[in-house]
Amino acid sequence: MKRVITLIAAMTLTVSAFAQQSLMGGQTAKSPEINPDGTVTFRIIAPKARQVQVTGDFIPPIQANTNGMRMDTPATIDMVEKNGVWEYTTPVLEPEFYSYVFKVDGVATLDPSNIYQYRDVATWTNFFIISREKGDKGDLYSVNKVAHGDMAKVWYDSPTLELSRRMTVYTPAGYYDKGNKTKYPVLYVLHGAGGDEDAWQNYGRAAMILDNLIAAGKVKPCIVVMPNGNPNTSAAPGEWSAGLYATSMSGGAGFPPAKAGIPESFGDIMGYVESHYRVLTGPANTAICGLSMGGGHSFNTSLLNPGKFGYIGLFSAAASVPSDVAQKAQFETRMKALFAAKPKLYYIAIGKTDFLYQSSAGLRQFLDDNGYPYEYRETDGGHIWRNWRIYLTEFAQKAFK
Amino acid sequence: MKRVITLIAAMTLTVSAFAQQSLMGGQTAKSPEINPDGTVTFRIIAPKARQVQVTGDFIPPIQANTNGMRMDTPATIDMVEKNGVWEYTTPVLEPEFYSYVFKVDGVATLDPSNIYQYRDVATWTNFFIISREKGDKGDLYSVNKVAHGDMAKVWYDSPTLELSRRMTVYTPAGYYDKGNKTKYPVLYVLHGAGGDEDAWQNYGRAAMILDNLIAAGKVKPCIVVMPNGNPNTSAAPGEWSAGLYATSMSGGAGFPPAKAGIPESFGDIMGYVESHYRVLTGPANTAICGLSMGGGHSFNTSLLNPGKFGYIGLFSAAASVPSDVAQKAQFETRMKALFAAKPKLYYIAIGKTDFLYQSSAGLRQFLDDNGYPYEYRETDGGHIWRNWRIYLTEFAQKAFK
Repeated sequence: MKRVITLIAAMTLTVSAFAQQSLMGGQTAKSPEINPDGTVTFRIIAPKARQVQVTGDFIPPIQANTNGMRMDTPATIDMVEKNGVWEYTTPVLEPEFYSYVFKVDGVATLDPSNIYQYRDVATWTNFFIISREKGDKGDLYSVNKVAHGDMAKVWYDSPTLELSRRMTVYTPAGYYDKGNKTKYPVLYVLHGAGGDEDAWQNYGRAAMILDNLIAAGKVKPCIVVMPNGNPNTSAAPGEWSAGLYATSMSGGAGFPPAKAGIPESFGDIMGYVESHYRVLTGPANTAICGLSMGGGHSFNTSLLNPGKFGYIGLFSAAASVPSDVAQKAQFETRMKALFAAKPKLYYIAIGKTDFLYQSSAGLRQFLDDNGYPYEYRETDGGHIWRNWRIYLTEFAQKAFK
Repeated sequence: MKRVITLIAAMTLTVSAFAQQSLMGGQTAKSPEINPDGTVTFRIIAPKARQVQVTGDFIPPIQANTNGMRMDTPATIDMVEKNGVWEYTTPVLEPEFYSYVFKVDGVATLDPSNIYQYRDVATWTNFFIISREKGDKGDLYSVNKVAHGDMAKVWYDSPTLELSRRMTVYTPAGYYDKGNKTKYPVLYVLHGAGGDEDAWQNYGRAAMILDNLIAAGKVKPCIVVMPNGNPNTSAAPGEWSAGLYATSMSGGAGFPPAKAGIPESFGDIMGYVESHYRVLTGPANTAICGLSMGGGHSFNTSLLNPGKFGYIGLFSAAASVPSDVAQKAQFETRMKALFAAKPKLYYIAIGKTDFLYQSSAGLRQFLDDNGYPYEYRETDGGHIWRNWRIYLTEFAQKAFK
């Protein structure tokens, strides 16, 4: 045993020699450093660089209008070099889950000192969390000392799409406890264009939000189902038989067209969930929400299934009143059926500078004109994860009550 | 509906404006490009850089001896610039799962054109796969058109370690099929120093290897359990309440010492698995293997539990004969008990240039001296994932038979 321990000690000391086939990239700069005064310092060792910048969602974006749609573009801040180390310290940041990336002489560079990074669509960024006190947003998006639900990548058959497909399923803490026969309500949470079944797990912080809110007694323990919203693909890039392709905002671009849409095939997802988990069914126990394209999917799935979902959440949703006369008539009929079934909650949320703001306002006008009840939440900012985490947090607390 | 489609189309066209809070980093260089002749071309757009290099596990490492131990260090290759695009084309590469990273003016830079990347210990690298025909290593490590098992991140209680802990569990395709009451054998697969419960899922390609071998009828459908091997932590960095700390080869460095070791607490893992899954028990249905430190854990766990594991696999294992006299006597007694229980397979595998080669040879000498049967597999190369994937592939095919 002693020799084993010695060997492991030797391994620890000589890290760089053999960790992962001798491929090393990490740096020892302290970055990001969250300072006691609430500012954050980024550092990167790059003595040969001529310009190093940082861009992140803590920097107000540059605002612009394109064809009448609000389109924000990223802002960058120059870092300052001293002895080969480039540095930038932010103003005091509010509690939040933040992401950023460096640009070294124009090349996007993930922080070599920060192992925490996620992919969203085709972009990787580092992240960090600012939390000052229990219950603030940073705390809510962190893994805390509470009971944790399990997260599974599950394969289900979609006869409608003629594909075996992957989805992410959160089961609340205790679900698999021996002898537990409790049935749980189900919350379907859908991602946006270009995303996949990993999106809500990563930048959405869904497991952390649910763990923390359930532990605090603010959300009823529930199963959270995060399917893949690109109906001509099986799974996230790299996780299905299409190989290691380049992805984009259009998700399944380059693959044969889908056999049907997500709303039309949603029964396959629900069928799998209801036959493989201990679920409470009926509108009082079934909620659906999504962001952007996934908001559109939630909108259309609820329209196709009046009375099925008691709680419907449209987050920065691609959901609007059709302008085509025939389509509008069908839409009106479906909306009438949907609201005749009296959903307990029709929740619309959007940021003030979201490029879909006007489209969302048109939908609200339609609801007002028809006397269909809904809850509306407007936040600062645009079409961003910061808002979608807020909306999930709020919607989950309103569901199943 | 038409307007929704128009909006989604607009979203697709204006990708860069709002994907993930306008943080963009991706490039459009084709990289890596797998050429028809079997070579691979890497590209990165970096017009301001003075030197760009690539390092990867397709490049033979620089070999060195440190204190009598073989310690390979990464080799780098200079890329060549033309019109601001740096490029390097490899020789013809054999089918394999490869990883690499760029160095731009000395700064480790993940390929901005390749979204496929994993973390191992504290290092992120990009990866790509070369496959020429069905059944080669590249194919075996790919997601193919076969039935897929589920992968779950599961939380279990370890009373011995006084922690709630996370592990990865693979259940074979069909496990959750309605009405399936089949019980399955269990393969425990342990990671190395600095790794965590994600390691075998990522660079280990465990799900792909198992999916493909089970589909080919070469491995008996089984449950694969990949626990976390750092006994003073709960989970991979960022996945438990310790926050977003800097990790290292010593895994849980900086946290209070563990209440016990992994071998001493292994019963908690097995107890959870046996009470939460449909498992076949007994040595004919129970296998354990691991790499490096996890090989040491497999070695010691089997010594503490003679007769429990019918299949024991030591991959580049930190497993050796103690030099201390009293410890050696205890070790001999335990080995005697272990082999008296006649394990069906005691498998030792190591690379010719592994820094643990001599230690492993000492263990083999001990087995030979005592007439304890084992299978031995020696491969080229050192303490690397390429070897561990080979060993898992072989060991899994020998288990439960």
